[in-house]
Amino acid sequence: MAAEQDPEALAAARPLLTDLYQATMALGYWHAGRAREQAEFELFFRGCPFGGAFALAAGLRDCVRFLRAFRLQDADVQFLASVLPPDTDPAFFEHLRALDCSDVTVRALPEGSLAFPGVPLLQVCGPLLVVQLLETPLLCLVSYASLIATNASRLRLIAGPKKRLLEMGLRRAQGPDGGLTASTYSYLGGFDGSSNVLAGQLRGVPLAGTLAHSFITSFLGTEVPPDPGLLDTYSVQRSGLPNFLAVALALGELGYRAVGVRLDSGDLLQQAQEIRRVFRSISAQFQMPWLESVSIAVSNNIDEEELTRLAQEGSEVNVIGIGTNVVTCPRQPSLGCVYKLVSVGGQPRMKLTEDPEKQTLPGSKAAFRLLGADGSPLLDLLQLAEEAPPRAGQELRVWPRGAQGACRVRPAHVEPLLRLWVQQGQLCEPLPSLAESRAFAQLSLSRLSPEHKRLQQPAPYRVALSDKLQALVARLRAGESS
Amino acid sequence: MAAEQDPEALAAARPLLTDLYQATMALGYWHAGRAREQAEFELFFRGCPFGGAFALAAGLRDCVRFLRAFRLQDADVQFLASVLPPDTDPAFFEHLRALDCSDVTVRALPEGSLAFPGVPLLQVCGPLLVVQLLETPLLCLVSYASLIATNASRLRLIAGPKKRLLEMGLRRAQGPDGGLTASTYSYLGGFDGSSNVLAGQLRGVPLAGTLAHSFITSFLGTEVPPDPGLLDTYSVQRSGLPNFLAVALALGELGYRAVGVRLDSGDLLQQAQEIRRVFRSISAQFQMPWLESVSIAVSNNIDEEELTRLAQEGSEVNVIGIGTNVVTCPRQPSLGCVYKLVSVGGQPRMKLTEDPEKQTLPGSKAAFRLLGADGSPLLDLLQLAEEAPPRAGQELRVWPRGAQGACRVRPAHVEPLLRLWVQQGQLCEPLPSLAESRAFAQLSLSRLSPEHKRLQQPAPYRVALSDKLQALVARLRAGESS
Repeated sequence: MAAEQDPEALAAARPLLTDLYQATMALGYWHAGRAREQAEFELFFRGCPFGGAFALAAGLRDCVRFLRAFRLQDADVQFLASVLPPDTDPAFFEHLRALDCSDVTVRALPEGSLAFPGVPLLQVCGPLLVVQLLETPLLCLVSYASLIATNASRLRLIAGPKKRLLEMGLRRAQGPDGGLTASTYSYLGGFDGSSNVLAGQLRGVPLAGTLAHSFITSFLGTEVPPDPGLLDTYSVQRSGLPNFLAVALALGELGYRAVGVRLDSGDLLQQAQEIRRVFRSISAQFQMPWLESVSIAVSNNIDEEELTRLAQEGSEVNVIGIGTNVVTCPRQPSLGCVYKLVSVGGQPRMKLTEDPEKQTLPGSKAAFRLLGADGSPLLDLLQLAEEAPPRAGQELRVWPRGAQGACRVRPAHVEPLLRLWVQQGQLCEPLPSLAESRAFAQLSLSRLSPEHKRLQQPAPYRVALSDKLQALVARLRAGESS
Repeated sequence: MAAEQDPEALAAARPLLTDLYQATMALGYWHAGRAREQAEFELFFRGCPFGGAFALAAGLRDCVRFLRAFRLQDADVQFLASVLPPDTDPAFFEHLRALDCSDVTVRALPEGSLAFPGVPLLQVCGPLLVVQLLETPLLCLVSYASLIATNASRLRLIAGPKKRLLEMGLRRAQGPDGGLTASTYSYLGGFDGSSNVLAGQLRGVPLAGTLAHSFITSFLGTEVPPDPGLLDTYSVQRSGLPNFLAVALALGELGYRAVGVRLDSGDLLQQAQEIRRVFRSISAQFQMPWLESVSIAVSNNIDEEELTRLAQEGSEVNVIGIGTNVVTCPRQPSLGCVYKLVSVGGQPRMKLTEDPEKQTLPGSKAAFRLLGADGSPLLDLLQLAEEAPPRAGQELRVWPRGAQGACRVRPAHVEPLLRLWVQQGQLCEPLPSLAESRAFAQLSLSRLSPEHKRLQQPAPYRVALSDKLQALVARLRAGESS
C-alpha cells in the first residue's frame, strides 16, 4: 500500500469523495456491531449505452489507485464528526481513523473487456463498513470511464481502422479529471491519441495537436504566421489554402515537408475533396509528390452521423478530431452503474423491489463467457461461486435473463470473466498498460459477431443464469412473497 | 501567490492540463519574439443552454485558484521537451520554467451573475504566450461550472422556493472533480445541498443524505434495521411503511422524532400522497402531531418534466434528490464556451470566418447591463473599453446582435458587468463566499423578466453593440473583403 510513492495518488479520489449516507450507514453498521462482517458488493450496469448491445469495461486502474490510497486523515474524521450527530460514540471515529482497504478483495473484468448488463464489472469483498464506504467513489470511477471507452469504440467502429481519431474534448469535460478520464479512456476505447498534455504526461496517451484561430489572428496581415496549417480562420479558398501552399512550397524547396492542414468549419467532407484536388494538381505542377498526400485534419462538433459521412468510401479526410461528442456522450451522458449488496456473512442478499428492473441477483457469483467454434461469444453465464465451471464441449441448461424459460447451449470454448486483482489489499498482478488494454479492447470487439456489434438496433447479447442461481432467485422471491 | 497555503491547490488543475497545440503555439510565439506582447482574450458562450434565454456565470473561484498555482514544474517542462520537436531551442524551455501568472489580469462577471451570449464571462489580459496557454484550463473550469449552475437554477425555478432540492449525482459525474464541481455549482445555482461529503469539507456545501437499499438488505428478516426510512427496498405498502411506522411510533414514545422517509422507485407523487394520508391518520390515532409532517423525500431519475409534476400544487413531496439530470445535463451536456483573441499589442483582432456564427467581436471591451425603471434588465451593451459608460436616463443608440439595424434605448439604471478580480497576478478583493454567490444568483434571477426567465420558448434577451464597436466590426470586415 505504498500510496506515497504514487505521484498520482494525491490527485486520486479522496475517501470523503462519497455520499453522506455512506457515513450514516457506516455508523449504523458500527452500532449494530456489524462493521467487520464479511460482505460482497457487485458493480454492474442494467442496460448497454447508446442503444447498442455492448459496453467496454474500464476504470479499474483508477479504482486500484483509489483503494491503495484509501485512508481517512485526521481532518477527514473531524469533518465527519462535524456532520454526524453530536452524541456519536467517539469509538466510531477511532474505527474510521484506523480504516484502510487491507482487508478488501477485488475481482474485475480486465479493462477493455466486453461487458454486458448484469455481469459484474467489479466484485468487492471485505468488511461491511468499508466496502459500503467504497460505493460512491468506485461508481464514480468506473461508470464514466466505461461510458467513454464504449463511446470511443463506437466511433472507432464507424471510422474504420485507417482514419486517425483524436480526442480534443478537454475544454468540454466536467472539469480537470473529467478531461483526464476522457482522454485516457477514449484512447483505451480505440482513439489514436489526445490533445490533453496531462494525459500524455500521466497516462502515456499519445499526444497530437494543430493550432487555434487565435494563433492565426495574432499575426497581422503583413506578417506570415510560421505555420498557416489552419485554413478557415478567414476564408479557405481566398486566404487559408493559398497561404498554406505558398509556405509549404517555399519550405519544400528547403527540404521541409508540410505535415497537414486543418479545417474547423463548413462542409468538411466537401472541402477535403477540393483541397485534395488542389494538392494533387500543385503536387504534379511543382514536382513535389509528397504534397499530394499531405494530411487533412477536420474538427467541428463531429458526431456519429457526421463521422459516418467523413469515413465514407473515397473520403479524403485523414485525421478527425472529436471533442464534445466523445467527452460528454450526449446520446447518453451516464452509464448508470449500480453497486449492490449480494451477500453478507456468507448469506445471499437480494433487493426484491416492486420494480423488476431494479431487482438484483443474489449471492457470490462467478461469470463465464461461452464461445462458439469460431471464437465469437455466444452468451455470458452467471452462476454461484461454488458451482463447477462450465466445460467446453459439454451441453448445459441456462436461463437467459428476460426470457421465459431455460435453453440449452454447448460452448466450444469457455472463458472465466472475472480476475482477481486485489487480494487483502495487495495487487495480485500488474495491471496491463493502457496500450495493452486498448489492444485487448480491439481484439475483444473483433470477435463479437456483427449482429451484436452493429450500432443501430443490434441483436441483444444474452446473459444467462445457471440452474442453481436461477433456483436461488426463485427461492428468495418466494420467501419474500410468502 | 501563496499557492502552497491553499490546501486545494494540489488538487487544482495543473498547468499541463491543456491541449498540446497551446504548447506548439507558445513555441511559435516565442520564435516570433512575441511571447511578451500584451494580448487579451475573452471567454464567452454563443448560445444559452437548454433552450433557455439565460445562463449563470460560475467557475471564477476555480480559475483564480488555478492562476495562483500556475507554475510549470521541472518534470512538466521535461515532458513538454519530449513531445515538442527535438531541435527546439533550450531557451524556450527556460522561458517556460520561469512562467507564472504574475503579469495576468482578469476581469469577470461575479459568480452567480446572469450571463448572455457573446458577453464575456472572463477577460484575460497578459503576455501573449501565457494567456494562450491558459485557454484550455480556463474553458474547462468555467464551462461546466456555468452549465451546472444554470441547470440547477432551472430546476429551482421549476421546484419553487419551498421544496428542498438535493444534488446526489456524484456517482454519475465525470470522475472525482466532475462530481465536486457539480456539487459546488448546483448549490450556487439554487440547490439546498448535496450528498457529496468532499464538497461539504472543501467548499462548505450543506450536506444531506438518507440511506441505500444495501443498508436495508444487509439486515435479515428477523432483525429490525435501526432506521428503516427507505421504504421501497422490498414493498412500500407491505413492508417499508409498516416497518417505518412501528419504529417511528416506538421511538416517538421515547421522545425521538423520525426525520423522514425516502422513496426511490414507482410513482413518486402518488405514493407521497398515500403516505401522507397514512401519516395523518396514524398521527391523529396515536396523538403524535409531529408525525403528520414527517418529511417525504423522493429520488429516481427526476428530470425537468418529472420535477414539474412533483412540484405541482398539493404535492406532499418535501425533499427531492436529483443525480443524473443535474450532473450530466443530458439536455445539453456542454455549454460550448470559447476563448477568443480580441487584441494584441493594443490592436483589435477578429476572426472573420465564412461561418458567421463563429465570427468574434474585436477589441478590448467594457460591458454594461441596462435596466428598466423596475430594475429588470433590458439589454446588455458591449462597447470599446475607451468609450464613456452609458448614463442612466440618457438615450443612446445601440446595435442589437442578430438584428438588421440600430435601435434606441433609455436605461433607468446602468450596471457595469465586469469586475477586476486579478491584477498583475494579485487578487484585488476577496471572492464572495459560495453562499453569497448563491444568494446573488437568486437575486439576479428574481429581477429577470418572466418572458426571458421562462424555460420553454423564452423571448431572447438582447445583447447589443455600441456605435463605435459596431463601426470597428464593419471596418475590420470591409478590410478583410477588400
